[in-house]
Amino acid sequence: MLKERIAGLLDQRLSGHSLPRDFYVDEQVFQADIEAVFETDWLFACSTVEIPRPGDYLTLRVGHNPIVVLRNREGEVVAFHNTCRHRGSQICLKERGRANRLVCPYHQWVYELDGSLINARQMPEGFDTSAYSLAPVHVEVICGMVYICLADEPPSLERFRAGVTPYIAPHMPDRTKVAFTSTIVEEANWKLVIENNRECYHCAANHPELLVSMVEFALPDDPQAKTQFQGLMDRSTARWDALELPHKPADGGIEFRCIRLPFNENTVSFTTDGKPACNKLLGDFTEQDLGSVRMFRVPHNWNHFLSDHIIHFRVLPISANRTELRTTWLVHEDAVEGVDYDVEHLTEVWMATNSEDGMLAENNHRGVLSRAYRPGPYAPSEFMLTHFTDWYAGKMGDYVGTPHRAVAAE
Amino acid sequence: MLKERIAGLLDQRLSGHSLPRDFYVDEQVFQADIEAVFETDWLFACSTVEIPRPGDYLTLRVGHNPIVVLRNREGEVVAFHNTCRHRGSQICLKERGRANRLVCPYHQWVYELDGSLINARQMPEGFDTSAYSLAPVHVEVICGMVYICLADEPPSLERFRAGVTPYIAPHMPDRTKVAFTSTIVEEANWKLVIENNRECYHCAANHPELLVSMVEFALPDDPQAKTQFQGLMDRSTARWDALELPHKPADGGIEFRCIRLPFNENTVSFTTDGKPACNKLLGDFTEQDLGSVRMFRVPHNWNHFLSDHIIHFRVLPISANRTELRTTWLVHEDAVEGVDYDVEHLTEVWMATNSEDGMLAENNHRGVLSRAYRPGPYAPSEFMLTHFTDWYAGKMGDYVGTPHRAVAAE
Amino acid sequence: MLKERIAGLLDQRLSGHSLPRDFYVDEQVFQADIEAVFETDWLFACSTVEIPRPGDYLTLRVGHNPIVVLRNREGEVVAFHNTCRHRGSQICLKERGRANRLVCPYHQWVYELDGSLINARQMPEGFDTSAYSLAPVHVEVICGMVYICLADEPPSLERFRAGVTPYIAPHMPDRTKVAFTSTIVEEANWKLVIENNRECYHCAANHPELLVSMVEFALPDDPQAKTQFQGLMDRSTARWDALELPHKPADGGIEFRCIRLPFNENTVSFTTDGKPACNKLLGDFTEQDLGSVRMFRVPHNWNHFLSDHIIHFRVLPISANRTELRTTWLVHEDAVEGVDYDVEHLTEVWMATNSEDGMLAENNHRGVLSRAYRPGPYAPSEFMLTHFTDWYAGKMGDYVGTPHRAVAAE
Repeated sequence: MLKERIAGLLDQRLSGHSLPRDFYVDEQVFQADIEAVFETDWLFACSTVEIPRPGDYLTLRVGHNPIVVLRNREGEVVAFHNTCRHRGSQICLKERGRANRLVCPYHQWVYELDGSLINARQMPEGFDTSAYSLAPVHVEVICGMVYICLADEPPSLERFRAGVTPYIAPHMPDRTKVAFTSTIVEEANWKLVIENNRECYHCAANHPELLVSMVEFALPDDPQAKTQFQGLMDRSTARWDALELPHKPADGGIEFRCIRLPFNENTVSFTTDGKPACNKLLGDFTEQDLGSVRMFRVPHNWNHFLSDHIIHFRVLPISANRTELRTTWLVHEDAVEGVDYDVEHLTEVWMATNSEDGMLAENNHRGVLSRAYRPGPYAPSEFMLTHFTDWYAGKMGDYVGTPHRAVAAE
Repeated sequence: MLKERIAGLLDQRLSGHSLPRDFYVDEQVFQADIEAVFETDWLFACSTVEIPRPGDYLTLRVGHNPIVVLRNREGEVVAFHNTCRHRGSQICLKERGRANRLVCPYHQWVYELDGSLINARQMPEGFDTSAYSLAPVHVEVICGMVYICLADEPPSLERFRAGVTPYIAPHMPDRTKVAFTSTIVEEANWKLVIENNRECYHCAANHPELLVSMVEFALPDDPQAKTQFQGLMDRSTARWDALELPHKPADGGIEFRCIRLPFNENTVSFTTDGKPACNKLLGDFTEQDLGSVRMFRVPHNWNHFLSDHIIHFRVLPISANRTELRTTWLVHEDAVEGVDYDVEHLTEVWMATNSEDGMLAENNHRGVLSRAYRPGPYAPSEFMLTHFTDWYAGKMGDYVGTPHRAVAAE
Repeated sequence: MLKERIAGLLDQRLSGHSLPRDFYVDEQVFQADIEAVFETDWLFACSTVEIPRPGDYLTLRVGHNPIVVLRNREGEVVAFHNTCRHRGSQICLKERGRANRLVCPYHQWVYELDGSLINARQMPEGFDTSAYSLAPVHVEVICGMVYICLADEPPSLERFRAGVTPYIAPHMPDRTKVAFTSTIVEEANWKLVIENNRECYHCAANHPELLVSMVEFALPDDPQAKTQFQGLMDRSTARWDALELPHKPADGGIEFRCIRLPFNENTVSFTTDGKPACNKLLGDFTEQDLGSVRMFRVPHNWNHFLSDHIIHFRVLPISANRTELRTTWLVHEDAVEGVDYDVEHLTEVWMATNSEDGMLAENNHRGVLSRAYRPGPYAPSEFMLTHFTDWYAGKMGDYVGTPHRAVAAE
């Protein structure tokens, strides 16, 4: 019955327009989102440098599912459902921690870092520990980014891996460290949070900090791009070509986007003065002005790779009207706080921008609740929202069993 | 299925008794309330003097629907659904504000004060702005009171207008200004908040501040009215007749009530000392002791018009167990705060009374949740609750398609 | 449809294992819990010494039902639904209070302490007050413990009364007084709160304060009991036999448990130093070291009876994921605070233990929400959880009409 309702909502949908109301505000549709999207797709969990040593772990919640991502004794990143096989207690409680073995705090069942149960005190003779391993979660690591998938049969990530690696690898994310993390909760549907991120049509009036360095127009051949920007683009790409850094849009279709774009003239980083956020550059870079590689991947992850730092953004839905946004700033592993970088200088642009975007998304959510709300047309500069909603409609069509063609809108 | 349930609940209802439990506590019935009552009927929004100049606006939320009420360039009061035709963002964010034009804070689509879209930057050539006006909401202004209706075809207000105007007009509400507003949220169903307001049976034990000036008995011919009150009534009406101020109950049926009633001997206003709340009298009045015109209109609005000030009360449902009450105090437009009136002296009686009533309604709500709750009989002095619940049952009967006769209980 | 769902969940259940997920987290199953368990079974309300005099009352909420327990003029404990027969307002508002008669705060309807309506002011001539008595709730008092039942036909308590009286009566609960009460709310299902209480498998790692005096092993013939404990047990029981205090497990089946168990060597009470919590011993006791009578009764009540104090625990469900725990400490009625006992010394072990258990139950709840949660096997030391879940499954089987045999697991 819910699937029929969703099929009906999909039939009402017009590509190139915002979604029908219930996709944003209905709790039942939200549950379908979790099943259709978040329990089937690859999700960004964290950076590998957040869990550098064996036993380091990080926890997150996908829908109602507590997950722990950790580095095992062999140095590989693995992940498990963070629920004890005894009576279901969460095992790892902190957002980030370190454990020689995973010990459930309730009755001290002990799991190896590979998820196998190795001790269950007081259980009777003959208790078969091998039947009580932690339930595994699929993991792929791409350029230092840990992706997890809760599905039994995860889809392939190879096209994505091949597409983004040439752009990101030169920034050498494995040789970074965490400088700061921030988690905020927005009172808005997760798709409104994503849509807010996928366009800069709203930037001029709302993001003074971001526009110090960010160029509003997102495409090299944007018809609205000003002449000034075209000159900036030409000079930038010439320099990147010389450095053998790729910059043209990757062929990600509606699955992902990857592109290198310049900053405004005389600015090189996401800072309020446009100056570098960290004096120690990433990888082998010697050139400060590399613009930023912007990479987005459905359903919920965007990232910036600069000459001097990396920022990962991870969106997790909590309910139809609540969404968590976690932001992680990485700098060179040898950079020294207070010497090479200052945390406030490094983070203030996106801390402010996240806060501004949170208010915009919350206000959007309240307005969409109106019964007078009608899906409106995306502007040309909102072309990535068409990508996103087409992709989403395709996922939901698969879920309800009436495949919904993802119409290319460009 | 919900409509069948409601029809079944209506069949259980006895006129002259409080409603069956689920009408007060069930979230699905609450959604039906919004559709059957608040999205079809005329609602009190504000006083015209809250938005005196072109571009002044006031926002409110009817169910999930954000609404903006404003004065256009011609000086007329108009109202719109406060949701942008682009992606649905709320446009006006403050409770009260002023705008030359309505500019959506998200992407700066610009609407004229008549709701027409006059600029949508970055939209492509040929974009037809005329198809994207704000959705209008019906407005009627009666004696300075702004009523709005979200229905496509609003019911007539003419009987109401004709009935109440002779009582209110002499108080000249257009020549007032806002002295104070208060908004509180009560953890109780909106109908319990209304029922609480519709009787003074509870006053003696609960409202010491109010009873300084308020006469408990609400009808001139109340059989319980004491001899003393009858003398007070006779002297008052003789004086009002001489001033040509109407006072007998208007013929409002179960739709509205309008009557002028005296204050206690030696008191002339809703103050803790019974003295005037404002030395500058309303309109052309020279006589302080005019009692108060008490006007109630279904579903959610009551008002007092005195010689020296006006009070409007507006109830808006938030959920089955949460209700917002907004109170607005108006004084003569030329009255000077600190000279002619003191805000605390003006507001303390009803601030205290609202707070006391909030606690009573919340306690009533918690008790109605009991499965041992049984609808009980209204006392004779609660005759207005019979009016209200009969009216409500009629609305719900229409909604579910099994007309429910509104039985006169008197 | 809900009953079919519950029947399906019962079919999935394995005795000796934690329950299927939805029994712990689903709001609809929670409503069934209220109807099947809390509105049909005997519930612990309070101790009689909390309401020692006629007119003393105590209120609680069972599901949505506000209840008042009071002592009538004859000195008997009675209980009523705490909802006025006029318009349903709660009558007694405080958690504990005293009233000559029960007067509804809304319109002052007056009820005798036997629940009969004796005055309803302003009601018309001929109003039949006898038709508007408060709805009664069944009450049984056993050794100072007040049990109430909301069912029309309560089950028999006689087996329970006969079983526990010999253990508890020597502690003379009628000659005690309240020293302290504490109420906390845990974000966990009520059954997880009960399961947490029914085993000490989790004690070693979580309850340092409790284990000062508490022996972890709960059964005199526990195969894991250490030799040292057996010696302690033998010495203790010899002493109790000499005092004619019963100690062997009562025959309570899955309905209740009652047993006397020793404290650790050199400790006599639930204190952080193991010393007495009150120097004035209960009843006629002259011996400090009496261990504790531990009594649990389904669905929600456990108690400790020591030489020097009594503790009652009462669990009330609020929603699928919220549970209230109320704890009451009683000491001899002649004990003087500051002389015979210190409140902090008396309460700190269980205040700490309750807090620790609350965190464990909340963590358990969050983990059970996972779709990877699978019911796990109880350890032998968790045999009382098998009792509890078998009992619960039996109740739910009766409720859905497909009797579910309560399988003995030991």
